[in-house]
Amino acid sequence: MRALVVTPGRPETLRLIDIPKPKAGAGEALLRIMRVGVCATDRDIIFRGHGRTPEGYDYIILGHEAVGKVVEVDGGVDIGVGDIVVPTVRRPCPEMCPSCRAGEEDYCITGHYKEHGVWGLHGFASDYAVTDAKFIVKVPEELKEIAVLLEPTAVVVKAIEQVMVIQRRYKWSGKDMLVLGTGPIGLLSALILRLQGFNVSVLGRRPPESRKAKLVNMIDAEYIRKLTIERKYDVVIEATGSTEVVYRSLKLGKPNSVIVILGVYQPTKIEIDLGSLMTDLMQYNRVIVGSVCAGKRHFERAKEYLMEARRRYPGFLEGMITKIVKPEEFRRAIEREPDDIKNVIDFTK
Amino acid sequence: MRALVVTPGRPETLRLIDIPKPKAGAGEALLRIMRVGVCATDRDIIFRGHGRTPEGYDYIILGHEAVGKVVEVDGGVDIGVGDIVVPTVRRPCPEMCPSCRAGEEDYCITGHYKEHGVWGLHGFASDYAVTDAKFIVKVPEELKEIAVLLEPTAVVVKAIEQVMVIQRRYKWSGKDMLVLGTGPIGLLSALILRLQGFNVSVLGRRPPESRKAKLVNMIDAEYIRKLTIERKYDVVIEATGSTEVVYRSLKLGKPNSVIVILGVYQPTKIEIDLGSLMTDLMQYNRVIVGSVCAGKRHFERAKEYLMEARRRYPGFLEGMITKIVKPEEFRRAIEREPDDIKNVIDFTK
Repeated sequence: MRALVVTPGRPETLRLIDIPKPKAGAGEALLRIMRVGVCATDRDIIFRGHGRTPEGYDYIILGHEAVGKVVEVDGGVDIGVGDIVVPTVRRPCPEMCPSCRAGEEDYCITGHYKEHGVWGLHGFASDYAVTDAKFIVKVPEELKEIAVLLEPTAVVVKAIEQVMVIQRRYKWSGKDMLVLGTGPIGLLSALILRLQGFNVSVLGRRPPESRKAKLVNMIDAEYIRKLTIERKYDVVIEATGSTEVVYRSLKLGKPNSVIVILGVYQPTKIEIDLGSLMTDLMQYNRVIVGSVCAGKRHFERAKEYLMEARRRYPGFLEGMITKIVKPEEFRRAIEREPDDIKNVIDFTK
Repeated sequence: MRALVVTPGRPETLRLIDIPKPKAGAGEALLRIMRVGVCATDRDIIFRGHGRTPEGYDYIILGHEAVGKVVEVDGGVDIGVGDIVVPTVRRPCPEMCPSCRAGEEDYCITGHYKEHGVWGLHGFASDYAVTDAKFIVKVPEELKEIAVLLEPTAVVVKAIEQVMVIQRRYKWSGKDMLVLGTGPIGLLSALILRLQGFNVSVLGRRPPESRKAKLVNMIDAEYIRKLTIERKYDVVIEATGSTEVVYRSLKLGKPNSVIVILGVYQPTKIEIDLGSLMTDLMQYNRVIVGSVCAGKRHFERAKEYLMEARRRYPGFLEGMITKIVKPEEFRRAIEREPDDIKNVIDFTK
């Protein structure tokens, strides 16, 4: 079968190879992969040496945003052959820490978890893939085409869930949300906040007539291209991955606000007034929270949001998918043009 | 009557003056002040120009950690003449924002609140003082001597309450707490975390035979004088007010940990790797939360903790009070020697 693999730590090793079809073991499911989405983490693995190969391999199969069809499945789960499914990404640590034991491996304490396509487990960018059947989410036929968005949506659901829990600190009545960035995480954050009824502004760099700006307008969110220091927000979601923007984001919150850090940032030394930044956090009960990954419950909730989004904003999710390429054309999906949002590799082609 | 006043913004203007006794208006209480504690905020007002005078005055009466006896009180509250009471510090904004309306003026959204002894309202460092009767907490006779600690305890109660709400993000099982600093806020943080059953380490600079170290040991907490990067904590409470320490504190948390910022930091430009710091926050679901002030509910809860502390750790709270001086000797309370913790001005003398 075809598999898109990379040797982490060595640039330009991304390649499509032919390897034997994997076999499902006890408790596992064998999936016929349909589509795999490409994200910033994949590009970090490809170009910046992030990622870890599975034990015994000198490469890792890429891909952690996948949708596929069940070919074989070991009993004991509510999944059957022929079901369309999305696997979650992270698997519990071998120690089974309290979080992993509680089914919250996205809050693993030991850091010894594994992640499909990222950290010690092969990903899903191949014709067939095997994963633990307990970590699979069934998706309805109607979501098939956009189900590659389920994983990033789940990541956003978890981030916003954290905000809502944090704001139980007091009788919160926040309304004004700012999303920084118009990549998949930025747009999906804006979508979910809109579905929750908030006012949403989205910062982007593309012109107002661009695809990204139009998608923002489609969900009745405001598209802005400049930040003004006078305008403050109840929640700021940082999804640009830019160190310069993240620094500015820390100053855009109202009293008692929450700044959510969702990007991966390049190591960058900058001179900042840390004293004033910390006094400011203290003086206004502000919170900065980082959010990573998502658990199965976030995938389940994300599925509901995607179904609601298709009813309320038809065309929005489809509009986020900018390229669908054959595995042989993988480079076109990895390279990112300014208007690209979610590029997808289609393993049925 | 005697009043300890300062002209904010002008160093060395701290003075004891003689002014007329204030009169209680509608809804107000007149207090005979017994004791007033001195804290870092007072020193910021005295030496660094923090604070704002009440309208129509060119000085502000200092003091926001007070205990007094009710002399007069306007009806409608559960407080009577002769009661020993502690007034809270902050008063709602004139707009009555949603937080102030909900009795959570410590989460005021407009920032137009006032604070006794700090921001636009006279404090309690005088023989008599007047305040809104709704913002007074009755304390039992047994707490009289240490009731000046109620305000800083309430500040700590609020900070820890925020941590506990934030950690409802997942099934938290945190045990190991680090408190940075052995001032009143540091020691009271350690105390409350111990009363809640956590393992507590406290970072101080004084030798192991010092008063501060002994107080830490008295509550079965660990006294440390060095941080090691290998040892991580579930919660870190920063109460040194040092920009250097606050930077280090951001790296001492386990995955999913909370760093609490409780200090006031001098503006200090330093070069930091902000990119890595933010990636790290993201990658481990970490939170940084600032906490300021306290509402009446925190004072009520703090009262219970102080009573429990007197039973479980007799002598601890008394040991935190290092100097009790007459108003005429105010300089001795303001100046801070290395072993000083809470210095108190006694207006009954």
